[in-house]
Amino acid sequence: MSAVTDGTAVPSLQGVTAAAGFRATGVTAGLKPSGRPDVALVVNDGPSDAVAAVFTSNRAKANPVIWSQQVVADGVARAVVLNSGGANCFTGSFGFQTTHQTAEAVADVIGVGAADVVVCSTGLIGVGGEAFREGVLRGVGLAAAGLSTDGGPAAAEAIITTDTHAKQSVVSVDGWTIGGMAKGAGMLAPGLATMLVVITTDADLASDALDQALRAATRVTFDRVDSDGCMSTNDTVVLMASGASGTTPEVGDFQEALTAVCADLARQLQQDAEGASHDIAIEVVGAASEDDAVTVGRSVARNNLFKAAVFGNDPNWGRVLAAIGTTDAEFDPYAVDVSMNGVRVCHAGAPDRPSDQVDLTPRDTHVHIDLGVGPHAATILTNDLTHDYVHENSAYSS
Amino acid sequence: MSAVTDGTAVPSLQGVTAAAGFRATGVTAGLKPSGRPDVALVVNDGPSDAVAAVFTSNRAKANPVIWSQQVVADGVARAVVLNSGGANCFTGSFGFQTTHQTAEAVADVIGVGAADVVVCSTGLIGVGGEAFREGVLRGVGLAAAGLSTDGGPAAAEAIITTDTHAKQSVVSVDGWTIGGMAKGAGMLAPGLATMLVVITTDADLASDALDQALRAATRVTFDRVDSDGCMSTNDTVVLMASGASGTTPEVGDFQEALTAVCADLARQLQQDAEGASHDIAIEVVGAASEDDAVTVGRSVARNNLFKAAVFGNDPNWGRVLAAIGTTDAEFDPYAVDVSMNGVRVCHAGAPDRPSDQVDLTPRDTHVHIDLGVGPHAATILTNDLTHDYVHENSAYSS
Repeated sequence: MSAVTDGTAVPSLQGVTAAAGFRATGVTAGLKPSGRPDVALVVNDGPSDAVAAVFTSNRAKANPVIWSQQVVADGVARAVVLNSGGANCFTGSFGFQTTHQTAEAVADVIGVGAADVVVCSTGLIGVGGEAFREGVLRGVGLAAAGLSTDGGPAAAEAIITTDTHAKQSVVSVDGWTIGGMAKGAGMLAPGLATMLVVITTDADLASDALDQALRAATRVTFDRVDSDGCMSTNDTVVLMASGASGTTPEVGDFQEALTAVCADLARQLQQDAEGASHDIAIEVVGAASEDDAVTVGRSVARNNLFKAAVFGNDPNWGRVLAAIGTTDAEFDPYAVDVSMNGVRVCHAGAPDRPSDQVDLTPRDTHVHIDLGVGPHAATILTNDLTHDYVHENSAYSS
Repeated sequence: MSAVTDGTAVPSLQGVTAAAGFRATGVTAGLKPSGRPDVALVVNDGPSDAVAAVFTSNRAKANPVIWSQQVVADGVARAVVLNSGGANCFTGSFGFQTTHQTAEAVADVIGVGAADVVVCSTGLIGVGGEAFREGVLRGVGLAAAGLSTDGGPAAAEAIITTDTHAKQSVVSVDGWTIGGMAKGAGMLAPGLATMLVVITTDADLASDALDQALRAATRVTFDRVDSDGCMSTNDTVVLMASGASGTTPEVGDFQEALTAVCADLARQLQQDAEGASHDIAIEVVGAASEDDAVTVGRSVARNNLFKAAVFGNDPNWGRVLAAIGTTDAEFDPYAVDVSMNGVRVCHAGAPDRPSDQVDLTPRDTHVHIDLGVGPHAATILTNDLTHDYVHENSAYSS
């Protein structure tokens, strides 16, 4: 990011309304039993209406995902409407009609076509009946009256489910800005987490440039959060550009700044993962390919025995090696080094420094795996497996 | 199993000494801090010495697995020596020498070559130093003095780790018998669980017939237990035939009886899985292929959100569909039916009967998934994700 004066992502601030040309709000429509805000609306006032988005790779996709994939196909969108309190997934044709009606309601409010309105839902699968439809449409009406250029924080608040707090991030670079909000705390897994992310920028970039930058950024950020190995049906990351800054940045600069925002939001998702007591970065180096590094990192991240051991502050490197052994990555079990929080506990596939020299009590946990067969690396972010995770996910819907 | 008078597997009884021609024992060599028995020896007195075995498909294999794969390659073995209290995995060349010395010690006792002695170890990865070697060799000496034709139960007791009880099974058919013992409670996963299994028979069958029957039996039994998705480095299933009955059964009859023993032991493993409060059978029908059915069942079995929901007696079918969607199996998300304990909660990808009609309080839990695209089926056995699972696996090595 040459010629960049301030390229560091900063949490909070205005999120999706930090960039010029956007209004947003969050309202309470009664979808959540808790009575917390549950419908958010983000509107791009232009002059540009370029959009790009990536969606869950789960083959069981929620109605809003099926709808929104069509909306962004032409690279144009004017608004994103989001609800918590129901995923509108596996709710039949009634559920799809609800998504369509929601887009139409927003389109009426801002004077565009429904085909320019992205819809996102999050909450329980199977929730999407009459009461849900009425609630969402009521929410759109309320949101229409509340849109403002400093409504980002309210929007961020309205999309959370089991998150303990809203997540926003902003980076400003040479006269243009990227800001975003995210939700997601459980079902965090590859090919996107159970998360909804809206990112806005006042940079002036065409939709194909946005698409390229977004795919590159999510590939190394959100796609590498694997909190609990469970892939959602509703994951969506939307990037809208208003062009209101009048500036068209270098593609490389834009991508770097976008990656910084995505990485910051991804890290916030990890830090707020359901029931977690450790934020674990699994850094795999010495891999024959980047894919191999990701595969190995993900296998360790998904190993319940390893995750439970970290919860117990137990540097159980044997479980790391056993997890590596289940992959098809190139490696020699007797050439692998494993370090935890800076202490090499396994060298060349045999015990090295004593495990009791490892301090796993800090929340930030670093597992370093050297496969010793090549120059490639990747880091996967995950969490430990805790009593609180089991509690939250056994009680979530009851 | 035509012409079979008594083909039902029965738990307990004599396990590996139920069939004629075998002696066994279990002793306490001091490998376990608990002071419980930790070394077992099973000897085939013939006249036949045919053997077959299957091993973990984990690419990180323990020293005893590397050794034993060579031992059984010629279809001949006279004994299996097993220890708990240390996996002897990732213990360097010292660890491999320990396995070799263990086989030689057993060979000396029974007057055969070391290349006819299968070695199995279970316990913590990375444990396999001087004290371990001394303990195992001491155990072989003790076991040599204790071998008897009713030593099966003692052997079964000596191989358990976090198991709450020993596991044995016997089936007798028309003058010949198959008996077995198993251990395994955590790290239960595909391509074999963290388990050691020794099966003996007095039927007279050549090693290639044993091998064929064993692979067919494990494919539909042990390979379909997926308690926690973690694959072990030490898994071994050994089948020895003494021929002492003087009977050579029909291959089909033998395979059916062997499958019954394996299924019974697999079910015992599931029922004793670490910390579990539900034994879940995930029956997938209507699949385009058996592989697809297994893939779908395994994906659901490994979904932590689904497993935690069952722990909470919550029939969360949305998590089932989300797990199916992550597979490459042929299916249409809007044609899937899901029933739990006999209540169809999802029909054609939409809500069916109310979830509160499902009673998930019994330990035995049945999830029935109809993909609706073909005639194939498979059942995967798994467990729920509980506080006790997290506790046991965070505290296991500390």
